[in-house]
Amino acid sequence: MPRYRLTIEYDGRPYCGYQAQGKLPSVQASLEAAVLKFCGETVRAHTAGRTDSGVHATGQVVHVDLTRDWPAETVRNAINAHLGRQPIVVLDAAVAPAGWHARFSATERRYRYIILNRAAPPALEQGRVWHVKAPLDADAMHEAARGLLGHHDFTTFRDLACQANSPMRTLDVATVRREGDHVLLDFAARSFLHRQVRSMTGSLSWVGIGRWTAADLKAALDARDRQACGPVSPADGLYLTGVSYEANASK
Amino acid sequence: MPRYRLTIEYDGRPYCGYQAQGKLPSVQASLEAAVLKFCGETVRAHTAGRTDSGVHATGQVVHVDLTRDWPAETVRNAINAHLGRQPIVVLDAAVAPAGWHARFSATERRYRYIILNRAAPPALEQGRVWHVKAPLDADAMHEAARGLLGHHDFTTFRDLACQANSPMRTLDVATVRREGDHVLLDFAARSFLHRQVRSMTGSLSWVGIGRWTAADLKAALDARDRQACGPVSPADGLYLTGVSYEANASK
Repeated sequence: MPRYRLTIEYDGRPYCGYQAQGKLPSVQASLEAAVLKFCGETVRAHTAGRTDSGVHATGQVVHVDLTRDWPAETVRNAINAHLGRQPIVVLDAAVAPAGWHARFSATERRYRYIILNRAAPPALEQGRVWHVKAPLDADAMHEAARGLLGHHDFTTFRDLACQANSPMRTLDVATVRREGDHVLLDFAARSFLHRQVRSMTGSLSWVGIGRWTAADLKAALDARDRQACGPVSPADGLYLTGVSYEANASK
Repeated sequence: MPRYRLTIEYDGRPYCGYQAQGKLPSVQASLEAAVLKFCGETVRAHTAGRTDSGVHATGQVVHVDLTRDWPAETVRNAINAHLGRQPIVVLDAAVAPAGWHARFSATERRYRYIILNRAAPPALEQGRVWHVKAPLDADAMHEAARGLLGHHDFTTFRDLACQANSPMRTLDVATVRREGDHVLLDFAARSFLHRQVRSMTGSLSWVGIGRWTAADLKAALDARDRQACGPVSPADGLYLTGVSYEANASK
């Protein structure tokens, strides 16, 4: 029973999120329906990270177990054909090593958050960026983001509905840079808490407009209190860009 | 009676093109309706370049004449407010010099064409790129594009419905480069013939897949015959990225 690792891209706008929720449209339900149409099998599409409603992905990883041993390219092309015009696409399919699991074998998740920082709202990027009118100091945001790196209790930047057992996480990458009218925030960690990236991004925007200093951001982190968080940025600008696995992933 | 120069961005998908056509949704009609709502004036929104249906813009230039002398920022913000959620936005508004005309004063139009060159179709970029599955040799395309530079009779790359008086145009920029899965084609000229960029791009794609050599492309140009053109690429990947004017534009 081969397990297929699927790397997928999607526009999160039409979906209630990655995870299936009753009859609501979800990325998972769309993928599972496409697999069913392709080979007649009812599968569960396990994911490396459940993205919220409106959150996008350019490098999400999913696995499905199929009974028959299809060429990986056939799996990719057939699922894509059955997804039709839905904004979900399988970029790559590969047979996974024994014991590999999209979620449990993951060693790093990477997210990018895109802010459109100009007076005019987006036309071409509606629903795909967070529009911030006030000029942001990306260098100040980058400097402040360094204070979030490492192993911390991230309770401040965790949604109250987060179901993780522990608020302890290790943030390995947190960078902010400007490219023209865009401010790009990149984060990487073994795993994230619910809404952690959006909570950190919204708080960093306060540094960007000068409302907070880097020390204020650090104090918010140290408070370990959700009330100390700045604004939570909208789903629109968030992209799951990649997931890493051990080079020789057998678990 | 001040003339306002507006730099605008739009997603071309919902529109029949820039130009108003009866009751069809158009960029022009949307802009004119927003101006009417803002200040009660019925204006004509003159453009630097009429884009076709589905063609996008990141740097289109338009002018409108208003009776009252509004601050330019007010004009920008008010039009944007009245455009609402339509994918058209005024990036910048400025009072134009005397005699300046969005179309007649323009000295250069710039277009970018974006090809998504990978096996999987686009999810996040549906309607915004041309999806080409076959691997493209961007360097070969770039080399071939050099053969199109300069002053030529572009009849081969001109739509049969083109209404320009002459097929003679001077192509000042024609470059092709790869950025990951994207192949970016940039063109600049004082003016272009109808569908010239899409005709050149489609023909260059034949060079990219090895069906044509640079010499074949040059022969197609020299044929001065629409029948010698390669495929015409779709509107999806085309963006009007900018318009230049004389530094001291009084005409």
